[in-house]
Amino acid sequence: MLSVTILGNNSAVPAFNRHPTSQVVTQDGTNFLVDCGEGTQIQMIRYKIRRGKITHIFISHLHGDHYFGLVGLINSFNLLSHKQELHIFGPAPLKAIIETQLKVADSVLCYPLHFHTLAGPGILVDNDKIRISAFPVTHRIETYGFLFEEKQGKRKLLIEQVRKFKIPVSFYSSLQAGLDYITPRGEVIRNERMTAPPEPGKCYAFCADTKYDENIIPYIQGCDMIYHETTYLDNMRDKAELRFHSTTRQAAEIARKARVRKLLIGHFSSKYAVLDQFQVEAREVFPNTDLAIEGNTYEVH
Amino acid sequence: MLSVTILGNNSAVPAFNRHPTSQVVTQDGTNFLVDCGEGTQIQMIRYKIRRGKITHIFISHLHGDHYFGLVGLINSFNLLSHKQELHIFGPAPLKAIIETQLKVADSVLCYPLHFHTLAGPGILVDNDKIRISAFPVTHRIETYGFLFEEKQGKRKLLIEQVRKFKIPVSFYSSLQAGLDYITPRGEVIRNERMTAPPEPGKCYAFCADTKYDENIIPYIQGCDMIYHETTYLDNMRDKAELRFHSTTRQAAEIARKARVRKLLIGHFSSKYAVLDQFQVEAREVFPNTDLAIEGNTYEVH
Repeated sequence: MLSVTILGNNSAVPAFNRHPTSQVVTQDGTNFLVDCGEGTQIQMIRYKIRRGKITHIFISHLHGDHYFGLVGLINSFNLLSHKQELHIFGPAPLKAIIETQLKVADSVLCYPLHFHTLAGPGILVDNDKIRISAFPVTHRIETYGFLFEEKQGKRKLLIEQVRKFKIPVSFYSSLQAGLDYITPRGEVIRNERMTAPPEPGKCYAFCADTKYDENIIPYIQGCDMIYHETTYLDNMRDKAELRFHSTTRQAAEIARKARVRKLLIGHFSSKYAVLDQFQVEAREVFPNTDLAIEGNTYEVH
Repeated sequence: MLSVTILGNNSAVPAFNRHPTSQVVTQDGTNFLVDCGEGTQIQMIRYKIRRGKITHIFISHLHGDHYFGLVGLINSFNLLSHKQELHIFGPAPLKAIIETQLKVADSVLCYPLHFHTLAGPGILVDNDKIRISAFPVTHRIETYGFLFEEKQGKRKLLIEQVRKFKIPVSFYSSLQAGLDYITPRGEVIRNERMTAPPEPGKCYAFCADTKYDENIIPYIQGCDMIYHETTYLDNMRDKAELRFHSTTRQAAEIARKARVRKLLIGHFSSKYAVLDQFQVEAREVFPNTDLAIEGNTYEVH
C-alpha cells in the first residue's frame, strides 16, 4: 500500500495557516519524507506522523520553503536519541549547510547520517519493496522530482485450494513466490490453481517546483498518482513562467498528457486565501484532481 | 513603554504545543526580536506581531532552537518586498550560515541586511529611546544575554500651569527638555512649576540559556524585569549543571540576588507536559515570578 500525507501545501511564505512544502510517502509501514519546509517537525506532531519511522529524506531543491525545517528535524532526532540510520538525498550544497550548523552548535549526532548528493536522474533506493528515483525538473535553480515505484507484491494464497491440495505450510512462501508444488508422488500442481496474482505495485511521482515542461512526462507516464505544483491560477501564466512555476491548467495538462490516474495539486501562492478555484480550473482539464490539503492522506489506487 | 511578548517558551524539541525560544521586546512601538527558533514567523502570524516592524534581531547563541527560524524570516522579508534595513546581531558563524543559504537559493535581498558580530559584552544599539547591550552568560557554547534599557522620557507638561503662565506653544518642547522660561519682561519661571518629572526608563534583561552563574548579576542588577531560563525543576540540578542549564530555584535565586522587580521563567524542557510546578518552585524563592506563556505580553513596570 502506497499513500501520501500532506504536511505543507503552501508556497514560499506561510499564510492562511498553510505551511511550506513537505509530505510523507508511506509504503508498507515505511515513511519517506519529501521536502522539509520550516515547521515540518511541528506538523508531524500535529498530524501524528511518527518521526522515529523516518529513515529517508528527499530534498527537491534549496529554496528555503523546501528545506528550512531539515536541520531542526536532524537536531530533534539527535535530542530524541534516535539510533537508526538517516539517509538524506539533496543537491550538493545541502551537505555543508547541515554540517556547518551541527558544528557551530557543537553537536555530535548519536545516529549515522548519510548524505547522498543528487546529480541528474537516477535510482536512489532500490530494495524488494520499492524503487525510488530522482528526475530533473525545470525550476529557477537545480531541482528534482521523485518517483516512488512500489514493487509488485507476493502472489495471494487461495487458502481453500491450498488446503484441498494439502500443501505443507513450509511451502506457502514458495507458492507466494510463484512456484508449482510437486507432491510426494511426483504430481505437479500448478501454482495458478492455488494463488491469485499479486496486486500490481503502485506508482507515485512528486514533481516538485517546476514550470510547465513536457520533458518530465517520460518519467511519470502512467503513474497512479502524481503531485504537481500549481502556484498560480491560470490567469497568471506570465508570472508563473517568469518564476519557473506552474498554473492549474498547466499541471492538469501534464497529468493528462502523461496519462496518470490521479493528480494532486499544491504549493499554492500566499496571495490566495481560498483554494476552490484551483480545483475547478484543474478539473476542467483533468477531472480526477484533488487539492493537496494539509493533514490529509491520499491513498494511491 | 517597554513590554515582552513570548513567541516560544520551550527548550530544544517542540512539544505540548510549545515552541522553541523567541520573544519580541517592544519599546515605544518598535519591535526587537530576541532569538528566532524554528517556526517563529508562523508564531508571529498567530500572535499578530507585525513582521514589517522588525528592524533588529538578536541571536543569543547558535543552538538550533534559538535560530533555526531566522533564515526563513529573512527570506520571507524578501518575498514580502521589505524595504527597511535589517540589523542582525549574533555569534560570528551566523553570518556565513545566512549567506550560504541565500546563495544556494540564488536569492538577492531587496533590503539592506547588516550583520553585527557579537564578541564580548558591549553596547549594540544606543539612540535617544533605548540602549541595548549584550552580556556573556555561561552555556555550552558562546552565548549572550541582552539588556534593554529604555531612556528616560521627556518631562510632562502640567497643562494648566503652562496656560496660566501663558507659555508660547513654540517653547513646549524646551519645557519638556527641562528648560526654565524667561518672560519678555525678564522674569524667570522655573521649569518645575510647569512640568512633572518624566517616567523613569524601564529595564529588561533576557538572560538566554545559561547555567546558574552569579557573574551575570552586575549586568542585570536592579532591572525591572528579567527573563531567566528554567529548563528543569529543582530536583534536576545535576542534569542542569551537566547541560549548562538552570533550575527553577536557581533562576529565582539570581532574580533575588540581583534585586530585580519581576522574573519571567521559560525554556521548559520537553519532558514536562504541565508547568505549574515551575511557578510554585520559583515563587518559593522569588514571589514575583511568572511563567513565560506563548502569546502573552508582559509589560515592564
